Amino acid sequence: MTLKELVANIGIELESDGFEVASMNTLSDASANEISFVSNSKYLKNVSSSKAGAILIDEANREAVPDGCIALVVESPYWDMATLSKFFWTPIEDDNLPEAKIGEGSKISSKAEIANGAVIGKNCTIMSGVYVGTNSKIGDNTILYPNVVVYKDCVIGSDCIIHAGTAIGSDGFGFASNKMGEHNKIYHNGNVVIGDDVEIGSNTSIDRAVFGSTTVKTGARLDNLIHMAHNCEIGEYAVVAGQSGFAGSSKVGRSNVFGAQSGVAGHLEIAPFNTFAARTGVTKTIKTSGKTYAGFPFMDHKIWLKIQGKLARLVK
Amino acid sequence: MTLKELVANIGIELESDGFEVASMNTLSDASANEISFVSNSKYLKNVSSSKAGAILIDEANREAVPDGCIALVVESPYWDMATLSKFFWTPIEDDNLPEAKIGEGSKISSKAEIANGAVIGKNCTIMSGVYVGTNSKIGDNTILYPNVVVYKDCVIGSDCIIHAGTAIGSDGFGFASNKMGEHNKIYHNGNVVIGDDVEIGSNTSIDRAVFGSTTVKTGARLDNLIHMAHNCEIGEYAVVAGQSGFAGSSKVGRSNVFGAQSGVAGHLEIAPFNTFAARTGVTKTIKTSGKTYAGFPFMDHKIWLKIQGKLARLVK
Amino acid sequence: MTLKELVANIGIELESDGFEVASMNTLSDASANEISFVSNSKYLKNVSSSKAGAILIDEANREAVPDGCIALVVESPYWDMATLSKFFWTPIEDDNLPEAKIGEGSKISSKAEIANGAVIGKNCTIMSGVYVGTNSKIGDNTILYPNVVVYKDCVIGSDCIIHAGTAIGSDGFGFASNKMGEHNKIYHNGNVVIGDDVEIGSNTSIDRAVFGSTTVKTGARLDNLIHMAHNCEIGEYAVVAGQSGFAGSSKVGRSNVFGAQSGVAGHLEIAPFNTFAARTGVTKTIKTSGKTYAGFPFMDHKIWLKIQGKLARLVK
Repeated sequence: MTLKELVANIGIELESDGFEVASMNTLSDASANEISFVSNSKYLKNVSSSKAGAILIDEANREAVPDGCIALVVESPYWDMATLSKFFWTPIEDDNLPEAKIGEGSKISSKAEIANGAVIGKNCTIMSGVYVGTNSKIGDNTILYPNVVVYKDCVIGSDCIIHAGTAIGSDGFGFASNKMGEHNKIYHNGNVVIGDDVEIGSNTSIDRAVFGSTTVKTGARLDNLIHMAHNCEIGEYAVVAGQSGFAGSSKVGRSNVFGAQSGVAGHLEIAPFNTFAARTGVTKTIKTSGKTYAGFPFMDHKIWLKIQGKLARLVK
Repeated sequence: MTLKELVANIGIELESDGFEVASMNTLSDASANEISFVSNSKYLKNVSSSKAGAILIDEANREAVPDGCIALVVESPYWDMATLSKFFWTPIEDDNLPEAKIGEGSKISSKAEIANGAVIGKNCTIMSGVYVGTNSKIGDNTILYPNVVVYKDCVIGSDCIIHAGTAIGSDGFGFASNKMGEHNKIYHNGNVVIGDDVEIGSNTSIDRAVFGSTTVKTGARLDNLIHMAHNCEIGEYAVVAGQSGFAGSSKVGRSNVFGAQSGVAGHLEIAPFNTFAARTGVTKTIKTSGKTYAGFPFMDHKIWLKIQGKLARLVK
Repeated sequence: MTLKELVANIGIELESDGFEVASMNTLSDASANEISFVSNSKYLKNVSSSKAGAILIDEANREAVPDGCIALVVESPYWDMATLSKFFWTPIEDDNLPEAKIGEGSKISSKAEIANGAVIGKNCTIMSGVYVGTNSKIGDNTILYPNVVVYKDCVIGSDCIIHAGTAIGSDGFGFASNKMGEHNKIYHNGNVVIGDDVEIGSNTSIDRAVFGSTTVKTGARLDNLIHMAHNCEIGEYAVVAGQSGFAGSSKVGRSNVFGAQSGVAGHLEIAPFNTFAARTGVTKTIKTSGKTYAGFPFMDHKIWLKIQGKLARLVK
């Protein structure tokens, strides 16, 4: 689709065809055949260095758009980005694709559904009620227990174990909203990529990325009922106990350990090898390693213990 | 079933047949062909104005029952209500009903199960492992991702997206208990009603109502792993982030926004257009709009921040 | 397998065959045809009285091993226990076992999968997408709603109701880790045992035991989205509201009542008939009955209320 055709959907009339638009992306990751957008003023600093072919931006900031990049001036860049995201959404299932490839030695339950275009490696066990979506790839020796769902375009490595009812690749919780409170869905054209030797518990939810990938790296261990939002990254060998949640775009370094019912706010980074007590709520980036945290908002575990002691004495 | 036949099951012998009992209901919603009950003294004030045909009540309060309404005097009205609720339970599946109706253009996976009596609208996508129960109705253009379960008698609107593994219409957590701690199941003869343009994440649970409906209104957005108990109501365009929970009968006004891991206690109301930080625990009715809350018990967000500051200084 | 053959897998060369090893077990539960291990120094006191046939132990503590028991001296007993646990793992499904036995009057959906060796009692309702694993047993009159998963070797009693998407018997969250942070899976050769008259909500996860059983006793009521880790025990008639979590090996006495989003730490015991407000985090064993608790760390409910009052006044 040409840029001209695409942006006609949001009421912009371009004189020239512009370029053939490959996809949408963030300001920092977009290349010349992609369009991008300024969702909020925090990201304005990324406009001038963006390699995007065109950028959705409001009138007040159009001057920031670099030479050679087309400024798509609109009232609500985020709302219009949501509208356009739908044009890059591929069909949930595609009957025109070839039948799924199943590697030697893999055992697929007759009650599982492997969509066209999927690829299953060798010696996998795909149990009853499992769904593997279009174009998804599963490595070798991986076990998907009953009723695991892998949405389209996702990647799961070798030697993984995914327990019953876990959903991988569901849409992230993303939409633009107007002043009336109405929402405009942002289609999540990214995916989920899970490394090798990862074990994930039952009834856990891992959302696909808006752009790029939500990632669980090699050797990580996730427990039951975990919520992992779009574009998060869980590092190598990290351990996450039950009912913990990760808000969008947070990056957890290798070998971090989270107690049960923990939470991590969005858009932050956690350096490797830290430990978080149960119910810790991480609200800021952590740049150091080797510490133990607790509480919400989080603090050094020892300080949290002291505060609990003081509170107990308060009432005496 | 006549009232006489019905109450024989709890050891009451009526001389006359009474009326043909249509169902059970709350004191305030019951009509003349329904029976009701006084579950606790808080609701005694609703007895005199009740339109119910008969009311389960204890000896001490029988005088409150209005003229023309039959007082069913028992030791434990709540326990007996639970016992009788079973007689209004319809079969989970009913082979005598006609086969499900499927609207034009809808694509139903051969691995989905649509029970007799269900109605699916036009252009829906019903994926592998989905279950739609007896007498449930799905609107047009709605997508049910793999392994979504819709129990009997529920209603889902048009243009909805429900993600993998979400359960809609499971029984609410309701039972009467005696002094030994034994429980008597309250059959949930209500349903779940979901409006149009609603998106719900993966592995979320929405329980059916005891009487009436648990409701998610038009345009609402629910994330993954949310718990919504019986008889709750989520207003239009409300936004609920992952792992939040709503206890029974709470009503959330339109365009409220809940951060992740929030909780709302039972039987309260929240006015429209408020915002709740992650992990807020709402414990009281909120009658004003436009505010931001945090903490548990909840308070103004700014006050919560101040308290956290004071606590941090406490230990220095 | 002889002990000699087994321990060759962790580089130990025994001169004699030792005994035919039946399984692995804890120090206190192991019998003469089982091997055990010392996972941490807290359990050293159990070595001398252990009836195990052989014990994995480090050099420093080998003298504690009683006469007649073979000391298997290794650098990392816990890591090696994990390695050996795999040799006791039985196949997830076993085609050589006889077809499942289905009791009279039970209705099994054609879209459910009952593995070989399973036994379903009389008058059960097994709905679409349910999976019942090898050698699992279901009692009479039990309802498994759509997409419930029961892993191999588990036991569910009579008159139970398990709601959609609940997973019973998924592997516990257990592994040995080395200093690099790499993990070695501990195979969970135990099971889950659920008593009679138990109701469990939707999308709940109950993990199987490492050794022995994770247990939910007669008459208990579990709500939606609950996390129950390996080797926990929930007592008779206990009530657990939505999104609560129980860490490994905790034992909850009969008729305890937990509000929503509660948490219980691992390896503790709670005496019968206590009540926990929503979001209570139980961090220590409770030996008394009849009390109400709240907060995290938990405390008497009244004290918690007082502290909240003091905190509110702090900022004024």
